[in-house]
Amino acid sequence: MRGAVIHAPGDIRFEELDDPQIVEPTDAIIRTVVTCVCGSDLWAYRGLEPVDQPHPMGHEYVGVVEEVGGAVTSVKPGQFVIGSFATSDNTCPNCLAGYQSNCAHREFMSTCQAEYVRIPNAQGTLVATDEHPTDAFLPSLLTLSDVMGTGWYAARAAEVRPGSTAVVVGDGAVGLCGVIAAKELGAERIIAMSRHESRQKLALEFGATDIVTERGEEGIARVKELTNGVGADSVLECVGTAQSMQQALHSTRPGGNVGFVGVPHDVAVDGQELFFSHVGLRGGPAPVRGYLPDLIERVLTGRINPGKVFDLTLPLEQVAEGYKAMDERRAIKTLLKP
Amino acid sequence: MRGAVIHAPGDIRFEELDDPQIVEPTDAIIRTVVTCVCGSDLWAYRGLEPVDQPHPMGHEYVGVVEEVGGAVTSVKPGQFVIGSFATSDNTCPNCLAGYQSNCAHREFMSTCQAEYVRIPNAQGTLVATDEHPTDAFLPSLLTLSDVMGTGWYAARAAEVRPGSTAVVVGDGAVGLCGVIAAKELGAERIIAMSRHESRQKLALEFGATDIVTERGEEGIARVKELTNGVGADSVLECVGTAQSMQQALHSTRPGGNVGFVGVPHDVAVDGQELFFSHVGLRGGPAPVRGYLPDLIERVLTGRINPGKVFDLTLPLEQVAEGYKAMDERRAIKTLLKP
Repeated sequence: MRGAVIHAPGDIRFEELDDPQIVEPTDAIIRTVVTCVCGSDLWAYRGLEPVDQPHPMGHEYVGVVEEVGGAVTSVKPGQFVIGSFATSDNTCPNCLAGYQSNCAHREFMSTCQAEYVRIPNAQGTLVATDEHPTDAFLPSLLTLSDVMGTGWYAARAAEVRPGSTAVVVGDGAVGLCGVIAAKELGAERIIAMSRHESRQKLALEFGATDIVTERGEEGIARVKELTNGVGADSVLECVGTAQSMQQALHSTRPGGNVGFVGVPHDVAVDGQELFFSHVGLRGGPAPVRGYLPDLIERVLTGRINPGKVFDLTLPLEQVAEGYKAMDERRAIKTLLKP
Repeated sequence: MRGAVIHAPGDIRFEELDDPQIVEPTDAIIRTVVTCVCGSDLWAYRGLEPVDQPHPMGHEYVGVVEEVGGAVTSVKPGQFVIGSFATSDNTCPNCLAGYQSNCAHREFMSTCQAEYVRIPNAQGTLVATDEHPTDAFLPSLLTLSDVMGTGWYAARAAEVRPGSTAVVVGDGAVGLCGVIAAKELGAERIIAMSRHESRQKLALEFGATDIVTERGEEGIARVKELTNGVGADSVLECVGTAQSMQQALHSTRPGGNVGFVGVPHDVAVDGQELFFSHVGLRGGPAPVRGYLPDLIERVLTGRINPGKVFDLTLPLEQVAEGYKAMDERRAIKTLLKP
């Protein structure tokens, strides 16, 4: 089969690779129907994370089951499935507590920009749809394996409630999905921080009520101005830099909550500052698996359409161009078709 | 009148001071019935916080109203009152959201180890009891102005729920009150971290089910051992050092919560570590004012007896010895009688 391999920052190649095999009885092999490039893939692409040796890329996928190991009974060959970027047995104490992305057997997916993928912990990771969905649903279903689930977790971690005010820091695919989540969870006012016209437009379409283009101190002041000087009830931090975390913490009212889902890079939170802010803080890799049944239902009933974050579709073999377009901000998110 | 003044680390003097006066129409003057020394007073006493010039000390108090300003209608001269260490108007958005200790008009009390005290924002800060309580209730009522309310907030911020497992880091008065709070909020298992026999005994009396004497990596391992390898649902961090914060964060299960109420000194939380832990974190000066009606009721009905944290009672004029005994860990907490 063929798939994407990163050789060095900026160097993504589409190469011939070994076909994945069942290694453990808990594995499944899927044929990839669609996959995509994630904002977090850009950390390595931009050289902000080391690339010590060439390795496959990609952690978002929907597909059709080709083969299952002997211990897998919940899905079977021929079924259309969606799974999380973090695998889980869905039976350990962390899974049962709703934190499948901290499963005792967790493995992070990392080979999904390919024609076939081995899924560890398939029993607890994959969710099959009743029927094969039509093509129109594929982009939205694909977002459920990461960005839409991650936006959902950001909103839940930030404790968005009916009638509340939410701020979304970050206008990438996760931030835009965070807007959808905040709306679905009942936020009355949703302030999206964005300075890119196409992303602002999508944020408004997804339910944002206000756009803030300012950043730093000015951005914080603008949010305060929009929230009677108090700050927002909930802030979704969807970037992962020291600057975006400061933006989030200072935009939150005392007693409010920040949900942070951008993998933090060089972020340290000062204890005394957090203390006197009274802000609650929770982050982490999203427990996407737990949300899948609910979010699949919302997609297939047409209630949400997160697939709109894909503004570039390419054949999988053009994966390198998919990275490049996102790196140069010509695309929000690239969908790849094998 | 007379009161305590710190002149330098280790140098507390009981001195003649000006009688406090009504300055703002929102003020009240109370005659102190009992006051005490707080663990946080020791930061200055130990030279860990600067003492730039001599200043009065103390932020915990119960008393009898002597005089009120023209804007104060909720309490009147002759009433017995309890108030928070942080004053509040109890009407601003932060107060209405339950964070009175982040009131727009907040002033931190700092002159309470004295015979008379000026209380700013008296209307929103003081709560009067129906009758003058008998002497037996005074120690417990006094704890409500800070340590018991702070332990309560630690348990609430850590989201202690019926049936849950709670760990309390710190065996000072706040930690011990945190044990009471965890029990009242329904924790089934309460693990108190303490290596002092008298404090262990009091923790068990207050409802702790397990004592952990180990610290650092060993302490974390012991908590994990007691919680099926997963960690506790809720951890109350009642110290404020980098070490105690690490102890708290690593003792919490993924998806669990840390409530931190020790004022952090040189504490920074690594963003990536917090991210991958999935732990929720909230701290701050406790919104004691909001808890007062409920906690006064629990004290006066005999349901809780947090006054037991006072294991030394001295006349106010011996305030210097009260500090010394706590600094040398001869006393958990010193009650002072004018």
